[in-house]
Amino acid sequence: MHEPITSVTNPRVKQLVKLRNRKERDTSGVFLIEGFRELSRAVDADVAIREVYSCPDLFLGHNERQLVEQALAGGAESIELGVEAFRKVSYRDRPEGLIGLADQFSTTLDGISPSPNPLILVVESIEKPGNLGTMLRTADAAGADAVIVCEPTTDPFNPNVVRASLGCLFLVPLAIASTPETLDWLARNGIQAFAATPGARLPHWQADFRQPAAIAVGSEQYGLTENWLDRAGERIVIPMGGAVDSLNAAMAAGILLFEAVRQRSANTHETRNGGSGTQHRKPGT
Amino acid sequence: MHEPITSVTNPRVKQLVKLRNRKERDTSGVFLIEGFRELSRAVDADVAIREVYSCPDLFLGHNERQLVEQALAGGAESIELGVEAFRKVSYRDRPEGLIGLADQFSTTLDGISPSPNPLILVVESIEKPGNLGTMLRTADAAGADAVIVCEPTTDPFNPNVVRASLGCLFLVPLAIASTPETLDWLARNGIQAFAATPGARLPHWQADFRQPAAIAVGSEQYGLTENWLDRAGERIVIPMGGAVDSLNAAMAAGILLFEAVRQRSANTHETRNGGSGTQHRKPGT
Repeated sequence: MHEPITSVTNPRVKQLVKLRNRKERDTSGVFLIEGFRELSRAVDADVAIREVYSCPDLFLGHNERQLVEQALAGGAESIELGVEAFRKVSYRDRPEGLIGLADQFSTTLDGISPSPNPLILVVESIEKPGNLGTMLRTADAAGADAVIVCEPTTDPFNPNVVRASLGCLFLVPLAIASTPETLDWLARNGIQAFAATPGARLPHWQADFRQPAAIAVGSEQYGLTENWLDRAGERIVIPMGGAVDSLNAAMAAGILLFEAVRQRSANTHETRNGGSGTQHRKPGT
Repeated sequence: MHEPITSVTNPRVKQLVKLRNRKERDTSGVFLIEGFRELSRAVDADVAIREVYSCPDLFLGHNERQLVEQALAGGAESIELGVEAFRKVSYRDRPEGLIGLADQFSTTLDGISPSPNPLILVVESIEKPGNLGTMLRTADAAGADAVIVCEPTTDPFNPNVVRASLGCLFLVPLAIASTPETLDWLARNGIQAFAATPGARLPHWQADFRQPAAIAVGSEQYGLTENWLDRAGERIVIPMGGAVDSLNAAMAAGILLFEAVRQRSANTHETRNGGSGTQHRKPGT
């Protein structure tokens, strides 16, 4: 353990600040994990953490030192920062005194091992890191097998993705691929693709999500591309009754995923209505 | 129409900047509506707009001037700002050249006229303006009768509420009240209160949202208070299967509201499963 870094112009401090920039993340292959909860989840998920930057004066709880020790045991280097230097590096208004620098991990489709009856969220051309983070958190809560991001305009190692996901970025298997690659992968794995689009006629609750299912939502501004709509097996719509008729992309994903949770629970748990809450649309599936 | 204001130290410019501050909003009784879509919805909803600040050099579309004319016809004063002055006032990274200054409107329970079979969202102690805005947008999309905010720590006239709601703040009837007032009002109006809480045993899809229903969600950090849990008729839970087991408060609200939409649609529309997707839990309701 070295002396704490107190200078805001220290080269390490400058390098950490640069990692807010995507180009810097892309060329260096590393990214930042800020916050106790986020870093804990990364450590638990065996993310390769190279360096842990801590500022004990900013710690909020009592388990921070133990978490740093855990990261050290995993091979990380520990660097202490002074308050001013830490604030310079931090992405937050109220920093918690912990930032990890980690290797970006693989996000290929090969890395996903679907369960026997997978539920997958596909997101096409998502733009806002906060939305992608919320989707990862929600997909985890729904017990989804994986999130596949097609043609992203944000990278998953953006600090706002880490933050909005509350570290679920490290828990839910994540793949990034082109739309054709994704559609091919789904077909190869026998997974039915459902495309959520305002033009569809089938209300989402009439789709059968109890089969191996991938639910696809499009970008905030443009929705799903024709590439998806042309090849996805079934188009579905979330029926809306308001004046504005638009839902945030992450909200739409959550509503659809939890409709799948509802349908699937009727299969495995006793329910008061004896499972009549869902229906087999396709005999045999 | 006066000459454009170009100075960033102009008293009007300074006053607009101050309105980001809640105290200033509370004492002045006015608030800001930034953006074309948001201002359009406010004008359409007959919000009392006192002043419209525009910066034609920043306009993105072709309908801005018409919107300004509409606001003028409604009694607003029109003030043009130079680009620098507008940027000073704007709350956004990419300002669209339109900001309205409007009277805060009444948000009492008396102002809500529930429909014969109301669906209401209740939010207790919500902290983040962005979450409240998303909830208003989602409640509108679900066709909810109203949103009631109990014991809020954010005010609905916060610029981030206006923004995240996409202007749905002006579309969905909104009331602010204490928790006891709200519970009394619901009881008086024969509306069943459902409290979403992680400790409940009843999955949300087994609650009967087809009756007059109010769905309550708690704060981001603490959930619903005992005040709610003690008196709300039924406790419900969104069953989760992930490692983190937490949903963003706005996401939880959206999942619950759209479960109500699903159940209610089975009553009024022909569905492929003949309405078996829902069940009467309470005979006679």
